[in-house]
Amino acid sequence: MTEKVVLAYSGGLDTSVAIPYLAEQLDAEVIAVAIDVGQGGEDMEVIRQRALGCGAVAAEVVDAREEFAAEYCFPAVAANALYMDRYPLVSALSRPLIVKHLVAAAEKHGATIVSHGCTGKGNDQVRFEAGLAALAPHLKVVAPARDFAWTRDKAIAFAEEKSLPIDVTKKSPYSIDQNLWGRAVETGFLEDIWNGPIEDIYDYTRNPAEEREPDEVVITFVSGRPVALDGVEKSAFALVKELNERAGAQGIGRIDMVEDRLVGIKSREVYESPAGITLIAAHMELENVTIEREQARFKRTVDQRWGELVYDGLWFSPLKQSLEAFIADVQTHVTGEVRLTLHAGKATVTGRRSEASLYDFDLATYDEGDTFDQSNARGFVELWSLPAKLAAARNERIKAEAE
Amino acid sequence: MTEKVVLAYSGGLDTSVAIPYLAEQLDAEVIAVAIDVGQGGEDMEVIRQRALGCGAVAAEVVDAREEFAAEYCFPAVAANALYMDRYPLVSALSRPLIVKHLVAAAEKHGATIVSHGCTGKGNDQVRFEAGLAALAPHLKVVAPARDFAWTRDKAIAFAEEKSLPIDVTKKSPYSIDQNLWGRAVETGFLEDIWNGPIEDIYDYTRNPAEEREPDEVVITFVSGRPVALDGVEKSAFALVKELNERAGAQGIGRIDMVEDRLVGIKSREVYESPAGITLIAAHMELENVTIEREQARFKRTVDQRWGELVYDGLWFSPLKQSLEAFIADVQTHVTGEVRLTLHAGKATVTGRRSEASLYDFDLATYDEGDTFDQSNARGFVELWSLPAKLAAARNERIKAEAE
Amino acid sequence: MTEKVVLAYSGGLDTSVAIPYLAEQLDAEVIAVAIDVGQGGEDMEVIRQRALGCGAVAAEVVDAREEFAAEYCFPAVAANALYMDRYPLVSALSRPLIVKHLVAAAEKHGATIVSHGCTGKGNDQVRFEAGLAALAPHLKVVAPARDFAWTRDKAIAFAEEKSLPIDVTKKSPYSIDQNLWGRAVETGFLEDIWNGPIEDIYDYTRNPAEEREPDEVVITFVSGRPVALDGVEKSAFALVKELNERAGAQGIGRIDMVEDRLVGIKSREVYESPAGITLIAAHMELENVTIEREQARFKRTVDQRWGELVYDGLWFSPLKQSLEAFIADVQTHVTGEVRLTLHAGKATVTGRRSEASLYDFDLATYDEGDTFDQSNARGFVELWSLPAKLAAARNERIKAEAE
Amino acid sequence: MTEKVVLAYSGGLDTSVAIPYLAEQLDAEVIAVAIDVGQGGEDMEVIRQRALGCGAVAAEVVDAREEFAAEYCFPAVAANALYMDRYPLVSALSRPLIVKHLVAAAEKHGATIVSHGCTGKGNDQVRFEAGLAALAPHLKVVAPARDFAWTRDKAIAFAEEKSLPIDVTKKSPYSIDQNLWGRAVETGFLEDIWNGPIEDIYDYTRNPAEEREPDEVVITFVSGRPVALDGVEKSAFALVKELNERAGAQGIGRIDMVEDRLVGIKSREVYESPAGITLIAAHMELENVTIEREQARFKRTVDQRWGELVYDGLWFSPLKQSLEAFIADVQTHVTGEVRLTLHAGKATVTGRRSEASLYDFDLATYDEGDTFDQSNARGFVELWSLPAKLAAARNERIKAEAE
Repeated sequence: MTEKVVLAYSGGLDTSVAIPYLAEQLDAEVIAVAIDVGQGGEDMEVIRQRALGCGAVAAEVVDAREEFAAEYCFPAVAANALYMDRYPLVSALSRPLIVKHLVAAAEKHGATIVSHGCTGKGNDQVRFEAGLAALAPHLKVVAPARDFAWTRDKAIAFAEEKSLPIDVTKKSPYSIDQNLWGRAVETGFLEDIWNGPIEDIYDYTRNPAEEREPDEVVITFVSGRPVALDGVEKSAFALVKELNERAGAQGIGRIDMVEDRLVGIKSREVYESPAGITLIAAHMELENVTIEREQARFKRTVDQRWGELVYDGLWFSPLKQSLEAFIADVQTHVTGEVRLTLHAGKATVTGRRSEASLYDFDLATYDEGDTFDQSNARGFVELWSLPAKLAAARNERIKAEAE
Repeated sequence: MTEKVVLAYSGGLDTSVAIPYLAEQLDAEVIAVAIDVGQGGEDMEVIRQRALGCGAVAAEVVDAREEFAAEYCFPAVAANALYMDRYPLVSALSRPLIVKHLVAAAEKHGATIVSHGCTGKGNDQVRFEAGLAALAPHLKVVAPARDFAWTRDKAIAFAEEKSLPIDVTKKSPYSIDQNLWGRAVETGFLEDIWNGPIEDIYDYTRNPAEEREPDEVVITFVSGRPVALDGVEKSAFALVKELNERAGAQGIGRIDMVEDRLVGIKSREVYESPAGITLIAAHMELENVTIEREQARFKRTVDQRWGELVYDGLWFSPLKQSLEAFIADVQTHVTGEVRLTLHAGKATVTGRRSEASLYDFDLATYDEGDTFDQSNARGFVELWSLPAKLAAARNERIKAEAE
Repeated sequence: MTEKVVLAYSGGLDTSVAIPYLAEQLDAEVIAVAIDVGQGGEDMEVIRQRALGCGAVAAEVVDAREEFAAEYCFPAVAANALYMDRYPLVSALSRPLIVKHLVAAAEKHGATIVSHGCTGKGNDQVRFEAGLAALAPHLKVVAPARDFAWTRDKAIAFAEEKSLPIDVTKKSPYSIDQNLWGRAVETGFLEDIWNGPIEDIYDYTRNPAEEREPDEVVITFVSGRPVALDGVEKSAFALVKELNERAGAQGIGRIDMVEDRLVGIKSREVYESPAGITLIAAHMELENVTIEREQARFKRTVDQRWGELVYDGLWFSPLKQSLEAFIADVQTHVTGEVRLTLHAGKATVTGRRSEASLYDFDLATYDEGDTFDQSNARGFVELWSLPAKLAAARNERIKAEAE
Repeated sequence: MTEKVVLAYSGGLDTSVAIPYLAEQLDAEVIAVAIDVGQGGEDMEVIRQRALGCGAVAAEVVDAREEFAAEYCFPAVAANALYMDRYPLVSALSRPLIVKHLVAAAEKHGATIVSHGCTGKGNDQVRFEAGLAALAPHLKVVAPARDFAWTRDKAIAFAEEKSLPIDVTKKSPYSIDQNLWGRAVETGFLEDIWNGPIEDIYDYTRNPAEEREPDEVVITFVSGRPVALDGVEKSAFALVKELNERAGAQGIGRIDMVEDRLVGIKSREVYESPAGITLIAAHMELENVTIEREQARFKRTVDQRWGELVYDGLWFSPLKQSLEAFIADVQTHVTGEVRLTLHAGKATVTGRRSEASLYDFDLATYDEGDTFDQSNARGFVELWSLPAKLAAARNERIKAEAE
């Protein structure tokens, strides 16, 4: 029987060419699967037809937008996920979701091979293949760009030779990945890390320097999950979409950074994540109000590790799941509202309220009604500083003896 | 012989009244010491004369502005010190410096007691007294506001009774602490954490919503220390001062947060730290370029702990010193330039360059000249994902057996 | 109405004297509650009668041995809880359990005050009062030894004056706390930390230097909880009791250490915990077999923090609960058997087996049947070492330029 | 010009055969370098002659025993280095030292290739090649066992074909690596992880079950480094050697564990490290006495990471160096003496003394002379438990509202 290959299909040149190429190289039938994670752009049905036009024996479109928002983006909010304190894991979040649907398609069609378009120097190959190793270790993986040393020029030549229904002349100077959670841009002139980004490369955000009126938004969270904007309940997808528009209109969520890739090199990345940056800012402040101090301090370590694992392709790993058990417990009371001003590139928290607040006006106030017993403080300070005091005295003594 | 008290003197109502009050209560002579940490406001000589007018047997002014910038603020930059990922430790940095000068004054004058104006529910009492415990454990400490349950009304009555040369009618609705590194505001109406801040409470920063032209600045670092702005070398104090003005003019450095105090309560704080926020943003990006990945990942834990210790009053503790040994080693190659756009409340990095850069164009580029050997990737991915793969297979097996 | 005090009653001199003393000082009725956490010694009914004889209006005994083993000791096994890598938290585990039963008694009797016999320089006062603060913040706490500066001599004089039914001449030279999980000894001559312990101070363990036959035991765990010895299922209490006897007979579980107390000082402690040390050794090895590498690495940080929190009296704190959510997730597959040789002071693992093992003979073996594909290694090594390699090259370059 | 290969030469079958094999395969001259890291066994000159007999154009012996003890083993003591809380990094410590000498030899002889005998499924290949990548990135690496899929049978056939001066009949059933710091054994029957080790596999340690007299030793440390045994100063090598003998005679230092390899699999390992285990036990206790609490708590995280890095082959990495800056600062006052009883498999600390001790008898004692002010405790406990108390009250409130 002919082997079947499930291909993660984007509709672009590389994965379109991959359809006849894989069929030829592997003597196999190719099933193209396009996953809608909110990347926008072409109509998904057009993309599906193109796959068939390129020779796929079957082509499927999966609308995973709601699933992506609810099960991939929102856990990232709960973990305040900012890799290197900056990057909200845009591409890293979509890869495991895509893997899950590829595996489902492989099961449905009886495929034995999965294929993706990633190169061998990026993080995404790891995310695809580590995900596949966890979910479907029996499937073989082929990555033409990496494993057959495929290049753009080869792809164009092959497309022309096979008269594939693709416009090979369209070429962005930028390498772009985008989805509901944001947009990642790498590009020739940005590879000189002293060069500043130009307006042209942005798409989800307006120029922060434009004159504009501020926008104000109130975000409601229940147990760490965003559920409403300005008091109106919304599905996960609708909420992120609206916030992308409103925060994007204010130029919020642009990131320009040099980043440590898993494969051991540094790269320069420009990101846009209007909703991502806004939601994480709001969530962090709600945690400030509702989480106990030691819990909050330890959670920073947990959050950092969660972000590293997801960046590093280990979405389906045991440690990630265990960290999420910790995070879920912490989120129990992260319920309430945060008000932010969105303006000129910045989402600024201006108010927060919660039935589960640990802020106690009567303890905090300097006004009438203060219930804090200041007489406890002296004893506290004495014992709090005792270890450092004893060490300082010891150091003095040793120093004096040495003289 | 009469005992002597060294008082940390600000020139304000509380510490002015403390002079005759301490003299009376402790039957002691009071030496007032005012430390200039760049807080601005009144002329220091005017403050000094007021102390004498209130009955101090001696009054001294210490110009510690350069020392504060170089030895307290810049180590905080090296540690990317943002308590709870937000607060650049404005007051927390100045307290140990003040303690150091109080101890020097106590030694010079043969004082046996040190006094400060902090209350019993804030962090600053801990910072003062933990510092004193480490530097001069033999000195007694008196904090009138806390230990004698002193209040503002009592202070005013006492000032009028003693006809002290202070204007008791001047009353800010806000409780404010400020220095070169920033400004902290607590106030009645902000104690309702849903209330947004009003423009009136800010002093170091202009309204970010104002229309304005962006400013661009290039900051030069040598081994993690800022040394020049736009190529012009500056002393630590001059550099921070200029950056406060330029970033402040753009509304940069405003922070509004609910914060975990060391004494166990949450409080709402509004801060301004234009230079602080700008320098840390620049420094973090230069670290991204010059620090190896594993070093960078571990340094986040070190940085967090450094910030907690300083916030918690443990500046003179052994752990802080050991963390700084780590940080100093990491900073060796954090040398180079970062360009930022300052505009409308945000300091945005747009370029970075360094002789010590670990960014390797030839490895990173997708263009001609790529030296990255993609054939290594497949083996890497296999072994990288192997532990999670084995665990996933185990989980499947156990699950299947249980069914 | 007369106030009621619930007293944590041990039957010893201090808490016996506290009964009439508290009644007198607080003009209150005293309810004595003795909790059996497996401390052995006197019959609990004898203790109860003594409390009544000393003037308690009511006296109760709670048999909490099974609860202590199952809900306090076994979570410590799951967390591999060794404070400072040594101390299995003997006293620290019993305090929150005692607090829980004191609170229950206070509710039952309508008491408004709780009292305990701890001094002001130990950890146990914190464990009692932090527990009470969490479970019953409305209850007042009185600690006579600390709050009334009570001493042993005062206690004896008071006992004689009131003709209390206690033998005041019995005096151990040692300060001892013991329960099912172990025994803690502090004593005069051990306060010189150069002095070695003498055989006389041990009670749960035989001298390891005695000649003896080794014992061998197989411990079965299900999801991290010990459930059987040598294949025989046992209740938590029975399992720990038997293992205390068998491991104790081999001299296992002695610890002699200088320890950091929460109140800021160092103290010298001698512990015995035969079952505790044995169970943790077995559990750690079963984790080695059943837990994925990254999970195991992160769990060390979680385990350390869990132990610190429990040592520091924060059993009923939010962070401990969140850490336990992490630990519980990790324990899912910690199921299997560990064989140990018990002999001469040491519990040595000699075998382990588990249906959930992640050890894969076919991958690990150097014999026939090896399924590990060595060709993956080269690429892995290249990328694994790439960041450090780039940093080393940079350092060389900078060094060369500086010369 | 003929290329030159520097080969890490052990004298055993595999690396002996590698000499002519590499010469043939690479058309190169082979320089054999044997490093004495205290592995004992054959005379190093005999080994050197064998290399020449196998066709090496040059053969060198490096006596690195003192260097190994002082610069590799003792830093591991300072870091209390126990991978997975158990394994004192025996092989992991020697690899970077060997790499350093291979690089020196390559420079001296103008070699362009380095070769080692490791397979592709162990950690040592990574340690060799990551070390080489850092120290000499320009050198090529060849690992015949991995890169040419070399096996023992092939090696024997080749040896016989070439009449190499090696006894091919000698075959240990065990795979062994040993040096001054210890001994690692992997073997056929131990690959069944339920099988217990047999006496036959041990060489550095006597059977702990033998009857014997205990030994007592006092170890002196200066700034964390062992310098004397029983008051007699010794070189690093002599000290470790003597302690290996004395602790080994008592059966101390045996470890039997399942371990997480860097290449992603678990393996079963049996180790002996008599001096290693003894020195680390002593050092940890001296740290308990001389290090401040918070410093000690954080150092556990640093120590764990140090051990992971060294295990993972990253000896020459920036993070390891930065961690060592932390450790060195902490070690400043780790000076003093620790007394241990060595007996029947266990090294038990019985006393410790230090001029730099932070243990304060007057604060710790319950006897006369107690200087600890217990009145501070109440305030301390109140504020210490305040955050958890507020959280508990919040949880109760929310729960009540939900009902």
